[in-house]
Formats: sequence, structure tokens, C-alpha cells
Amino acid sequence: MGVVVSLGEGKREAPSIQALLDLTAADMAAVNELILSKAGSDVEMIPEIANHLISSGGKRLRPMLTLASAQMFGYSGEKHVKLATAVEFMHTATLLHDDVVDESDLRRGRKTARTIWGNQASVLVGDFLLGQAFRMMVEVGSLDALDILSTAASVIAEGEVWQLAAAKNLETTEDDYLSVIKAKTAALFSAAAEVGPVIASATRSERNALRSYGVNLGLAFQLVDDALDYGGSAKDLGKNTGDDFREGKVTLPVILAYRRGTAEDREFWKSAIEDGKAGDAELNHALGLIARYGAISDTIGRARHYGDIARDALAPLAQTPQKNALLDVIDFCISRVN
Amino acid sequence: MGVVVSLGEGKREAPSIQALLDLTAADMAAVNELILSKAGSDVEMIPEIANHLISSGGKRLRPMLTLASAQMFGYSGEKHVKLATAVEFMHTATLLHDDVVDESDLRRGRKTARTIWGNQASVLVGDFLLGQAFRMMVEVGSLDALDILSTAASVIAEGEVWQLAAAKNLETTEDDYLSVIKAKTAALFSAAAEVGPVIASATRSERNALRSYGVNLGLAFQLVDDALDYGGSAKDLGKNTGDDFREGKVTLPVILAYRRGTAEDREFWKSAIEDGKAGDAELNHALGLIARYGAISDTIGRARHYGDIARDALAPLAQTPQKNALLDVIDFCISRVN
Repeated sequence: MGVVVSLGEGKREAPSIQALLDLTAADMAAVNELILSKAGSDVEMIPEIANHLISSGGKRLRPMLTLASAQMFGYSGEKHVKLATAVEFMHTATLLHDDVVDESDLRRGRKTARTIWGNQASVLVGDFLLGQAFRMMVEVGSLDALDILSTAASVIAEGEVWQLAAAKNLETTEDDYLSVIKAKTAALFSAAAEVGPVIASATRSERNALRSYGVNLGLAFQLVDDALDYGGSAKDLGKNTGDDFREGKVTLPVILAYRRGTAEDREFWKSAIEDGKAGDAELNHALGLIARYGAISDTIGRARHYGDIARDALAPLAQTPQKNALLDVIDFCISRVN
Repeated sequence: MGVVVSLGEGKREAPSIQALLDLTAADMAAVNELILSKAGSDVEMIPEIANHLISSGGKRLRPMLTLASAQMFGYSGEKHVKLATAVEFMHTATLLHDDVVDESDLRRGRKTARTIWGNQASVLVGDFLLGQAFRMMVEVGSLDALDILSTAASVIAEGEVWQLAAAKNLETTEDDYLSVIKAKTAALFSAAAEVGPVIASATRSERNALRSYGVNLGLAFQLVDDALDYGGSAKDLGKNTGDDFREGKVTLPVILAYRRGTAEDREFWKSAIEDGKAGDAELNHALGLIARYGAISDTIGRARHYGDIARDALAPLAQTPQKNALLDVIDFCISRVN
């Protein structure tokens, strides 16, 4: 089932989220049904755009976290399906707005909604999905879950503004970068994992365990994502190596290579990131510098560090299939880079 | 106090919202303080943009509706201040996103946030304010109020997408138009007025009265706004006569003039609204057609109709200073057009 440390026979399978997929399959069918129903509207453009995103082949990791973390504490009801759907809508709304902000043309190898329906519709349909997410949370009726998810919504948006304000700024420190990804990515992983124990009436320490797991998994996930942009293939990513470079994004591989480089290297980064001289030749040079200074392997090292914290966060909890599946997710996220 | 039918002496004062301003002055001071605190962030761009909007000289009608409608039922606490602030944040977030969608350069005679900080920041700061609005609602802890306001958030966004989908379409009927303004404008007036009695633990029929007042006031308000665009002066509006015309917006004055016009008139409207041939000469011609077919006076007539419904909605309620102040608001909204 994708557990990295295998049981006795010394054979390691590639890490996978198969256990998580299996455990949440029935609930995810209910989530998918609810997604279609809550993205419905007489205004045709809304279901069109929603379906475009929903059929985009994303892994739907976030709603699966909510489902598994509720199951883990014996939850039996329907609220976790509504909360998981709300989490996915929050994520989808963020993607719609992100693509507008980043002026992205492709996501997972498909045209973004903004290139098909325009920026205006992407902004407004994002708002609609966010509104629908809140309505579902209200239907669930847990003020604790509402608190966690509404706080996440604020924090995510604040992180996005922060990222925008720091754009193309090579003085960004690793700490700044971590604060941004903690807000823009890890906050939703954390909220998704914490609302499960909340509706399952788990203990405070169980809630804290899942929150800590979520935030650290989210950090590891984003670090690997940012490493992949300088090393993955377009087929795996649905985007091309160097997209972040061409957009002048200051992610950890760049931060490390810039700080570790010579004065001449730093001039190169300034011209590429700050002045936008970032063509194919410059990308090749950037990849060379990133390799020379070990910036990818150290970015992955940081991801492993947060993955370890996520693993330890779950350590005190009882052994359940859900716990093992969530541990697999950590290995899977990190193993995306080879 | 701006009551249109004066008491015995046959003298009519101009309708005003002075009574509402006086009754809510102390609470609005608390709202203003909360606005500044909840729009605060270490990310400088957030308070900058928020303050730009907050200092823009809007009347803040919506939060005053919440405050007065809570006071009206003897509410004594602090929750109405949080809900009123949440309502204002929802409105502000909508303005930020609207300006991006409409590509507006001016609002109330000042540069819009998007022209100063860019579309990207406007989208993201709008998201942040919406998140903060939900956090305040959750702090209040009333699931009924949360239901009302989260539903409004969805409905508003759905109305905006609808408006976008129907843009420049002269086949829009008066019914279509009413559905759009009911969603994009009246839904927030309605929610703002209804959450007051909700937190004051008023009766179901009192809640219904305030909701009906709010939705109909909102319809009247938007109808007058759309009439003003073909008749007001830039000084009053902070925008210029004909902005809607130049943007190809199909509002009721245009719908009426188009439907009542000759085949030749309809050709003119098609060229202006659908094909964008909408310069100063065309605006003058449009104003002539709108006057000839009584489209402004009939738009105002429609506004009076909804104003009357709003007035009757409050009729069964006890006479209180708040009730009188809310009745004044109806006259004030309609009297903006002379």
C-alpha cells in the first residue's frame, strides 16, 4: 500500500496515495456529487467553468485529507462530505483567482479558465464558489469548523497579497518565503486536516495533531512543487520547467542559489528575475547555477524536514488505516521529485 | 428629520438620512474602529487599499441598516457592530472585484484601487476582506446570521456573473434585469437589514418585515442609480453621465427606450451598446431617445413601486425612531433624482 518502510521483505514500493484513495473512495463519490450540485446555477457560465476545473484531473488531495481525518476518529455522518466539498471549492476559487493574478495560460497542461472565459468571469465565479463553500460550512453548523475554515480563507488571501508585494524581490529571505507558503498553501492543508477531528468530536490534542500534520505536509508539498519547477518534466506537472523563472517568482531554489552565488551570479539573477531577461538561454544558465549550489537538493531537504515534523505529529495517535494512509501522503508528496 | 409628509404645517423638507445618521452615530464610530483593526495586516498593501476605499466618502448605508435594525428590537450588545462591519467588508470586496471586472478608472470621482495598485492586488485584497468578514460573522456565533450573510455572498456573485453573461445584450428583458439587480444589489441590503432582528431575537415576522424592507429598498436604490447615470451630474455621483452607456450596460432606461423605440431607434441602440459606437454624439442621441420614451421617469416609477413595498413591509411594526429613520431612507434613495 505504498508504505515506504516495508514489512520484513526488504522491498520498497514507490510511495503512493493508493491507500488514501481506497479509504475515501465512497466518500469522494459523495463529494463529487455535491460538487456538481453546488456548482450548479441557471447562469450557464458557472457550471461550465466549475466543470472545467473539476474535470482537470487534480488529485483532490485536500478534500481527501478532510475525509480521512474524520474517518480516523470514527466519524459517521454526512458533515465531512460537506466540509470536504467546501475545502475543494475554496481551493478551486483560489486557483481561479491565482490564474488571473499570475496571468497564467495553462494549468495541468490545459487552458486556464481565464483564457477561455476571460478574467472577469474567473474572478466572479471564484467569488461564487467561495460563497457556496461558506454556505456548506454553515449548513454543517459547527462554529469550530467555521472558525478554522474562515480563518484559513483570510490567511490564504493575505499570503497571496504578500507574495504579490514581494514579487521579483531577490531580497526575499527564506523566512519570508516560508511565511508566504505557510499562508498561501499550508493554511488550507492544515484547515482541511483539522476539521475532520473537529466534527468527529475528537480531543483537543487529536485536533492539534492533525493541524500540525496538515501545516507541515502543506509546507513540504509547496517546497517540492517549487523544486519541480526547476526539475520536473512538463508531462508530470502540466506545466513546463522554468514557468516560475519566466514569471520572476522568487521561490526557495532561487533564494538559495542567489544567496550562495558570486557577485556575478547575483547580477545574473537580478537581470533575469527583476528585469525579466528570462529566455531559454537564461533558463539554462539558471538551471546550471541551481545545480552548482545544490539549491534543488537543499529545497528537497527542507521539504523532508517538514515531512518529518508532519510524521511525528501523528506519532502519538492510534494505528489506524487512515493514519497509515496519511503517513503515505507525506512520502508521496516528497517522492514527486526524483 | 427628513420625513416627506410633514406634520400639519404643509412644509416639506428634503428627504435625508439625518435621523439614521444620528441614531447610529455612536455605533458607527465602533464600526469604523473595527474596520481599521480588521483591515490591518503586516502586508502593507492591505491597509493601504482598505483605507483608500474606506476614506472614499461612501454613505455606509448598508452597515447603518444593520445597526438600526438591531436597535429597533432593543438589541443591546456588541454583535451588531461586528455584523455591520462584516456587511461593509462584503460590500467593499464586491466594489474591488467590480472595478476589476468593469475596468473602471474612477469611483466617486477618485481613482479606483485597480488604477493605483493594479488588478491583481484588487482581486486579492477583496478576497482578504471577504475572509475577514466571514471571520467576524463566525465570532458573532449566530448560525442564522451566518446563513443569511453567506447566502447573500453566493447570490451576489451569481448575480454578477449573470450580469457579465448578459452584457451588451439588448434582448435582456425587464424581468432579467430585475433578477440581476435583486441578486447583485438587493441581496446585501436585505441581508444587512435582516441580521439586525436575528441577533436581537426578534420574531419570525419581524425578521421577514426587515428582509422585505431591505430587498425592496435595494431594488429602488439600484433603479435610481441606473436612472442617475442618464441624468445626474458628475458632482453628485462621482461618475459622469453616460458611464453605463459607454460601457454598454443594459440597464432599465436602455431596456425601456429600446423596446419602445422604432426599428431605426433599435438600430441605433445596437450600434451603441452591442458594437460600442458610444461617443459623445451618440450619448446625446441616447439621452434624447430616453427622454422621448419616458424611460427615466418610468424607471423612477418602478423605484417608487419598490419603495412603496418597502414602506408597507415596515407598517405593522411598532413606531420607533429607528423605524421612522428607515422609512426616511426610502424617500432619500428615491429623491436622489430630481
